[in-house]
Amino acid sequence: MNSQKWGCGEGEAHENGHGSQFLLGLDGGATSTVCVCMPLFPFSDDPNNLPDPLPILARSVAGCSNHNSVGETAARLTLEQVITEALSKSGADLCAVCAVCLGVSGVNHPTDQERILTWLREMFPSHVKLYVQNDAVAAMASGTMGKLHGCVLVSGTGTISYGFADGKEARAAGAGPILGDWGSGYGIAARALTAVMRAHDGRGSKTMLTTRILKALALSSPDEIIGWTYADPSWARIAALVPEVVSCAEAGDQIANEILVDAVQELTISVKAVVERLNLCGEDGSASFPVVMVGGVLEGNKGWDIGNEVINSIQKLFPGAHPESPKVEPAIGAALLAWNFLMKESEGDNHH
Amino acid sequence: MNSQKWGCGEGEAHENGHGSQFLLGLDGGATSTVCVCMPLFPFSDDPNNLPDPLPILARSVAGCSNHNSVGETAARLTLEQVITEALSKSGADLCAVCAVCLGVSGVNHPTDQERILTWLREMFPSHVKLYVQNDAVAAMASGTMGKLHGCVLVSGTGTISYGFADGKEARAAGAGPILGDWGSGYGIAARALTAVMRAHDGRGSKTMLTTRILKALALSSPDEIIGWTYADPSWARIAALVPEVVSCAEAGDQIANEILVDAVQELTISVKAVVERLNLCGEDGSASFPVVMVGGVLEGNKGWDIGNEVINSIQKLFPGAHPESPKVEPAIGAALLAWNFLMKESEGDNHH
Repeated sequence: MNSQKWGCGEGEAHENGHGSQFLLGLDGGATSTVCVCMPLFPFSDDPNNLPDPLPILARSVAGCSNHNSVGETAARLTLEQVITEALSKSGADLCAVCAVCLGVSGVNHPTDQERILTWLREMFPSHVKLYVQNDAVAAMASGTMGKLHGCVLVSGTGTISYGFADGKEARAAGAGPILGDWGSGYGIAARALTAVMRAHDGRGSKTMLTTRILKALALSSPDEIIGWTYADPSWARIAALVPEVVSCAEAGDQIANEILVDAVQELTISVKAVVERLNLCGEDGSASFPVVMVGGVLEGNKGWDIGNEVINSIQKLFPGAHPESPKVEPAIGAALLAWNFLMKESEGDNHH
Repeated sequence: MNSQKWGCGEGEAHENGHGSQFLLGLDGGATSTVCVCMPLFPFSDDPNNLPDPLPILARSVAGCSNHNSVGETAARLTLEQVITEALSKSGADLCAVCAVCLGVSGVNHPTDQERILTWLREMFPSHVKLYVQNDAVAAMASGTMGKLHGCVLVSGTGTISYGFADGKEARAAGAGPILGDWGSGYGIAARALTAVMRAHDGRGSKTMLTTRILKALALSSPDEIIGWTYADPSWARIAALVPEVVSCAEAGDQIANEILVDAVQELTISVKAVVERLNLCGEDGSASFPVVMVGGVLEGNKGWDIGNEVINSIQKLFPGAHPESPKVEPAIGAALLAWNFLMKESEGDNHH
């Protein structure tokens, strides 16, 4: 791989011609990679006191950078491309970058993190601070504006819960469809499809889901669902049936209702596991902390509101939990994270 | 496709030079296709009075003939090849065949059946009776020796229940892993893997499954299971973990025990659905009928015996249910089925 540290002369490692320094935030999602470039905030080190609007110098978009999906070579090229474009639009170069944070899906193990860090290290000068996180962390930062305290619950096609407190982190779920991400869009829809099969062959009760789902898939019989699932292994295609489940539950279908009630419980258990491991709720269980709620399953339901039910259920366990919505896109969340990680490190340096 | 009806002269359509006629039974499994050739039994039309040993004239084996796995062209070629070889070994030709029964996986819908029937029709002279069935039907016949009365429960990598009574048929489950075949080997093992993830991230209780499964997979941490599941989508690879679950349940692990108890219930529900739809248990619920038990999950457990628990659970509902094991291989079951279908048709002809 050609990974020259381009455009970086001797002696100008910490400042570029603009006399300013830059933060890069990257969001590596399932279909695209977004990179934003922000100036290092000289004005404040308090995340509660951010400029509004945030000074976004440039934004660039490229394809998927999840190496599980596209392979290592393509993933690295995509990262180089999206970073180069953001810097070029900002009039900055690699030497002027002080920190980079990449939130990317598929980071489940330290070896995943280390692999991507190695690519970034080969791309940037050695003084640049590099952070690679699961995309859920960038999602959390998009709701906490970069603060590393609280937790995030994501439920879209998949689901994951992630939290930070006092420099510690914890996660729950996010293991994929085989490993029981039951509160995810995929999990909800797969259970609904299963309920249709069970009603059809006599193992389960009749449900309104049968008519609604067959109509949504333009199929004429539940038998045809088997072929439909084998035809395309995409989980997102299955998760797209969640609105049918919600609409049946709203119309009073008991099976659809049970599926959503169980999903709410699963999602609550994910958050509970993270909160308890980090002791986010404090000794007396009532400490205040944000729960950033992200993803299609948790958003936009008017009648049977899964997100709202999850929050109610979490607040029964932890009265100090307060829901937050993402306020910026995940790439900006990642840039704010880069800043926070940097602040934490320099605090650490000052203490030693 | 070159599908000439070879070796079949005019005027010799119903008898070949041997003065006898032949039955072909085919078993189209996930990895291979077996074809057996038997003489049409001239001695008896009673399935309870079969010659022992059965007169198997020839047996041939070829690759996979599931068109979902290998595509149509390869599936048809494999069928032609395995049939030609069995006939050639028997010294028979296509014109001397009176009936063919193919039990094949992936037949979930009348259109699947019709597609394969069309291939066979193009292969054989028009007087040959052709039957295409789900492989579960051949599995049932291997236990009932071709009788079309009773039901079969298969639980290997997948699970399906199938039954016949009074010319009617019914099936339950067999819809694949996405559609909730929870009593299958895949279903049991996927739940065990999920239990390991949940114990690891704090959503579930600690379980002996963690140590056993990590050891079986040569992994050092539950985080690594995520990558392991993504690395290879084969369901059989996951189902291969069933013995670990059984061994943990035998050692007293409560979570492993619950997984097996739930699987027993799921498998019982599949059989119950089929029995009730066909009224196999009779008006008073106590009529006698066979339940042919097939597949790795139901066989060979000594301590925690899933097959035995399923039978006990079925007999609580239907005291007349009696378990049967396969007595011959599925291809022979299919040949016996061919004979029974033929008998039924000629009975039908005699009545009209």
